[in-house]
Amino acid sequence: MTSASAPRLEFWYEFASTYSYLSAMRIEALAAAAGVTIVWKPVLLGPIFRAQGWDTSPFNIYPAKGKYMVRDMERLAAARGLPFKLPSPFPQNSLHAARLALIGRTEGWGPAFTRAVYEAEFAGGANISERRVLGGILKRLGLDSEALLARSEAPDNKQRLRQQTEEAQELGIFGAPTFLAKGELFWGDDRLEQALAAAGK
Amino acid sequence: MTSASAPRLEFWYEFASTYSYLSAMRIEALAAAAGVTIVWKPVLLGPIFRAQGWDTSPFNIYPAKGKYMVRDMERLAAARGLPFKLPSPFPQNSLHAARLALIGRTEGWGPAFTRAVYEAEFAGGANISERRVLGGILKRLGLDSEALLARSEAPDNKQRLRQQTEEAQELGIFGAPTFLAKGELFWGDDRLEQALAAAGK
Repeated sequence: MTSASAPRLEFWYEFASTYSYLSAMRIEALAAAAGVTIVWKPVLLGPIFRAQGWDTSPFNIYPAKGKYMVRDMERLAAARGLPFKLPSPFPQNSLHAARLALIGRTEGWGPAFTRAVYEAEFAGGANISERRVLGGILKRLGLDSEALLARSEAPDNKQRLRQQTEEAQELGIFGAPTFLAKGELFWGDDRLEQALAAAGK
Repeated sequence: MTSASAPRLEFWYEFASTYSYLSAMRIEALAAAAGVTIVWKPVLLGPIFRAQGWDTSPFNIYPAKGKYMVRDMERLAAARGLPFKLPSPFPQNSLHAARLALIGRTEGWGPAFTRAVYEAEFAGGANISERRVLGGILKRLGLDSEALLARSEAPDNKQRLRQQTEEAQELGIFGAPTFLAKGELFWGDDRLEQALAAAGK
């Protein structure tokens, strides 16, 4: 199978998103089993939410929905053997993590970095907006944290993330995780299996 | 197993809700296989949505989400061999159908009536706010449609539906379908299997 014809699935995720955490932790094993290549696409939901009149997560705007989400996450995480604790504040500011993940995607350490950030945030209770937290994660991956933090703030990298977020809006993405297979959107960790099947068809 | 100890699951549904249609069509077979008794609870989401500042379905307020929902429903319905077409107008006014379903729950024809209403609405393109449509469904079930339509408008029955909707709000229900098993909420057709497992434990 050539690379051009290999089935691929875009994984659009937001570091502040609880359900994106669930997908990030399992997507590589499922994709390998399905013979599908994953394209990791970090995105910021903030601008997308603001465009529809929200100034924070819908789980904060609608308390009944937020309370339910925590319980739903607790049950799903427990069933998968994952720790879960809602971080404080919620949602976390994911800007710096997303900028770093964009570099990691090009350089091959994006998936490992992404999972480590999610674990720090939703299992470890760390604040992922902090340079110290992100720098520690990069170091543990054997990377040059100072250089990467500096590069992530370069104008061209900032611009790449803005473009990626605009691309998400143009695709009609309104939440995370969202999977894109052959031009079709699949929203939510609940749709990961269906999206992989669509990509592989 | 005595009736007191028989596992039970409350199925809170809204006649205007697309995903409630999916659950209504499959819940009895799944519940029978799991040995769980279903308690059918028709509810109006209108007052619940208005309490959080919405004057229509979130699928109308947020067009990207609405467009996605239709595609998601098309895929799920196709996979299950169900027809699906978004009715016009959407959402339908479900007040009269819900009042009738409350009577049907007491008299034993609630599940059959509920499925017939969903089929008329989402497969047949009928407007379920019309007495003519609801009366036709009642007749086809061998029921006295004129008497039932009149009884459904009696003050005590109207009050029962208001009370049931208030009960939903007190439970923290914010969307449909929602399943209640042993005091825990499970939201969405995607959680039906999990809810049945929780009820049967």
